[in-house]
Amino acid sequence: MLRLGPLAAAGRWLPAGPRLGLPCLAAGPVSFSRSWPPRPVGDCGLLHRQVRPAAGSATGGRGLALKTPKGTRDHPPARTALRDRLLAAVVACFKRHGAAAIDTPVLELRETLMGKYGEDAKLIYELQDQGGELLALRYDLTVPFARYLAMNKITNMKRYHIAKVYRRDNPATTRGRYREFYQCDFDIAGQFDPMIPDAECLKIVHEILSDLQLGDFLIKVNDRRILNGVFAVCGIPESKFLTTCSTVDKLDRMPWEEVRSEMVGEKGLSPEAADRIGEYVQLHGGLDLIERLLQDPKLSQNKLAKEGLGDMKLLFEYLTLFGITGQISFDLSLARGLDYYTGVIFEAVLLQQENDHVEEPVSVGSVAGGGRYDGLVGMFDPKGRKVPCVGVSIGIERIFSILEQRVQASGEKVRTTETQVLVATPQKHLLAARLKLICELWDAGIKAEMLYKKDPKLLKQLQYCEDTGIPLAAIVGEQELTDGVIKLRNVATREEVDIPREKLVDEIRRRLEP
Amino acid sequence: MLRLGPLAAAGRWLPAGPRLGLPCLAAGPVSFSRSWPPRPVGDCGLLHRQVRPAAGSATGGRGLALKTPKGTRDHPPARTALRDRLLAAVVACFKRHGAAAIDTPVLELRETLMGKYGEDAKLIYELQDQGGELLALRYDLTVPFARYLAMNKITNMKRYHIAKVYRRDNPATTRGRYREFYQCDFDIAGQFDPMIPDAECLKIVHEILSDLQLGDFLIKVNDRRILNGVFAVCGIPESKFLTTCSTVDKLDRMPWEEVRSEMVGEKGLSPEAADRIGEYVQLHGGLDLIERLLQDPKLSQNKLAKEGLGDMKLLFEYLTLFGITGQISFDLSLARGLDYYTGVIFEAVLLQQENDHVEEPVSVGSVAGGGRYDGLVGMFDPKGRKVPCVGVSIGIERIFSILEQRVQASGEKVRTTETQVLVATPQKHLLAARLKLICELWDAGIKAEMLYKKDPKLLKQLQYCEDTGIPLAAIVGEQELTDGVIKLRNVATREEVDIPREKLVDEIRRRLEP
Repeated sequence: MLRLGPLAAAGRWLPAGPRLGLPCLAAGPVSFSRSWPPRPVGDCGLLHRQVRPAAGSATGGRGLALKTPKGTRDHPPARTALRDRLLAAVVACFKRHGAAAIDTPVLELRETLMGKYGEDAKLIYELQDQGGELLALRYDLTVPFARYLAMNKITNMKRYHIAKVYRRDNPATTRGRYREFYQCDFDIAGQFDPMIPDAECLKIVHEILSDLQLGDFLIKVNDRRILNGVFAVCGIPESKFLTTCSTVDKLDRMPWEEVRSEMVGEKGLSPEAADRIGEYVQLHGGLDLIERLLQDPKLSQNKLAKEGLGDMKLLFEYLTLFGITGQISFDLSLARGLDYYTGVIFEAVLLQQENDHVEEPVSVGSVAGGGRYDGLVGMFDPKGRKVPCVGVSIGIERIFSILEQRVQASGEKVRTTETQVLVATPQKHLLAARLKLICELWDAGIKAEMLYKKDPKLLKQLQYCEDTGIPLAAIVGEQELTDGVIKLRNVATREEVDIPREKLVDEIRRRLEP
Repeated sequence: MLRLGPLAAAGRWLPAGPRLGLPCLAAGPVSFSRSWPPRPVGDCGLLHRQVRPAAGSATGGRGLALKTPKGTRDHPPARTALRDRLLAAVVACFKRHGAAAIDTPVLELRETLMGKYGEDAKLIYELQDQGGELLALRYDLTVPFARYLAMNKITNMKRYHIAKVYRRDNPATTRGRYREFYQCDFDIAGQFDPMIPDAECLKIVHEILSDLQLGDFLIKVNDRRILNGVFAVCGIPESKFLTTCSTVDKLDRMPWEEVRSEMVGEKGLSPEAADRIGEYVQLHGGLDLIERLLQDPKLSQNKLAKEGLGDMKLLFEYLTLFGITGQISFDLSLARGLDYYTGVIFEAVLLQQENDHVEEPVSVGSVAGGGRYDGLVGMFDPKGRKVPCVGVSIGIERIFSILEQRVQASGEKVRTTETQVLVATPQKHLLAARLKLICELWDAGIKAEMLYKKDPKLLKQLQYCEDTGIPLAAIVGEQELTDGVIKLRNVATREEVDIPREKLVDEIRRRLEP
């Protein structure tokens, strides 16, 4: 039933799947490493040499605990290079949709964060009172964005923000869940005609998941107003809407029976009300379901639900124009945890599939989510003036876990540098010649390295090229100095040609053209 | 005496000075904004609209303090775009020298940071004890790098790391000094032949400062071993070397008389010893000074000083091969504050100059610094095994202050988005046509926007292009739909051409080619 959109064929830069090996990252004839991060062997100057693999934690000098804080991790070069490629693909999509980048501090006043996250506020990292203001680490990028809009009196903005956020959650590192992690947010703030920005947010999720070739996916959509309408017509008092919502939110990982018993046991709903809710929240479909609910005798009498269903119909019209309804499901069980949503909410999940690349499939869950939060900016504005907002957050850490495992399984070696030329010498006492030559290359903008030894062996120098994927070696020996040439060696083919020194830079550029 | 290197002419991408206006950031016919950040006027859909300028701090809803923490700031789109360009230029240089990127957590165990920064440790941000490990925010990127090397048993690495660090310092925001700020570090770890990596670090500073066209600069170089040798031959006990060093470090902002009185009064040196130190630390020069000190009857007898001077001579030989000694000064007053340096130290300063672009010149001080720290990794290694390191940190915030002021003074409008086409309609009831067309453009990889209104006026749509610098408008009206064409309008020239719809994407690409 699901089909992939036409994006995969649109010639965009695709960092995943078979196109993951880009020119600058291609392994060439380099021996593949199947360990992750790649730990190349050999001892040739500058290779990142690791004597023994680290256990992630050890005891350092003077009995120091040699580790990163619980739930955090270092990103070695191979992981950083892969992550940068992934982020670049996401940024490309955000820019395609006309967003500007902003940055806000990692630190916020504690009072800025309090009262925005419901029960999750206990997961906020607080700083010690060292005199002065009481501070905390940001928990997401949405509340800082709302604070930014209110503080600067901005009523209109389309922005993206990619940065780390902090949650004192129980880490589940195998599923890509950490205490420090990247969020990639795109948000549209402003008073506009209904559902046009909302539809664009869903289009963005669709483009990114298609571009990254993560396999089949489904974007579930619902509306807080429809959920609240459902609760109302099922006889739930308004004071219990939010808490009922957070129970419904568990339907993606719990069967209905358990959710029902939490509603009745913990949340104090009557069994009849819970059963009435159950009839609604197990529904999912498309335009047909929207039409049916618009005819529903009870729901159609509820103002909120009617508004929500009318907008949902409009949203589906726009998504039809975008040609992406094949991956969209109107799903009444989708509730989203956070308190601040007021309208459309959505969440993208990858669908189970056979993936012959992945040996141990990662369990990933939701890979993107978002929704409309029309009240948050008003919480910060001195006069309570509202700025309607809708936004999407891409679950980059989970997506990264999948890509990382895919690269690992494929045996692809990720180049961690972009060096184009190694400057080498075949004889002793030629350090000065190497330094002069490499300086010429750097000054011409060529990416060049040399070994930091006075008299390295030629074999070690060439081995370094092979180990790190450097495609060319520029060799300067006594004969070359006499002749005014440089020997340019293709590391893969071992072919060597003498190039007049003044033509070297052009020749290197010519050879490395894509 | 000083001259600029040949880099400025080497055709690299220069983000400063006259080349600052890149194609994607060019203002075109857009009205220039002289306020910073630019606050465009007008009310046309998506423009970042700011009702009133914010005072940097205000009272939010329910009496909330509406501000960022002391010493931190938000980066609005114009500032973020400029900062991204600056960082890209620095990264390009680091990659040209073959460095790989790593990332480490913003949080470190407190014990990892303690005992590494001397008196400055009081400036470390500590997290509240919320159960579990005692944490702090990183103070620089060097100590986390050493921790990373020791933890992973890496003995060889060339890496760069660009990330935020945190210091509870007294902010001096007009001089670009904040409590949260970016560091841009390049370091070479490993046992190599002397001064080859050290010379490359100085070359990198020279390339970056030249590329950025910041005006004349000077890189001061010294060696902790030479300083310690000077202290020894002046009769200072070894236990007072570090504290004497931090007093000498004040020579760049205090006259010798004050430094001398701190040595005698606070640090307890004898007046004679202080005077002897004074004779040395006021010396600066080049190879000639190194030769003279190598002949100095007292200093040449000191093992440390002799080693340091020998290496300094070698360093100057390599820097001569790089052709950059014109901007290098061997300066015995340079001491650097941090405890962990063990060999070569250096610091780059911009020289006073007339700059007709800048209305109020910023006082910036040092714009890059670094040195050799051969003992730091050993402090983390369980067996105390040393990994020699040398590195450089680019003072990106100070450089950014200068560039920001330059852009501000020039009146250049920084484009904050890269949108290529606005999809517009001249009549009502054409929202569906706009949605279909913009979807085609996005799917073809074109950066496109539309106003989020059902029936926007054509004038408002074109005004939005002018205000935000969008070069093209793709206009679809009833006639165009009938004829199967799109009217492509050049916003600057107002010229309009009908393009067959199937050729639109190619035509847009053709027009936007550089």
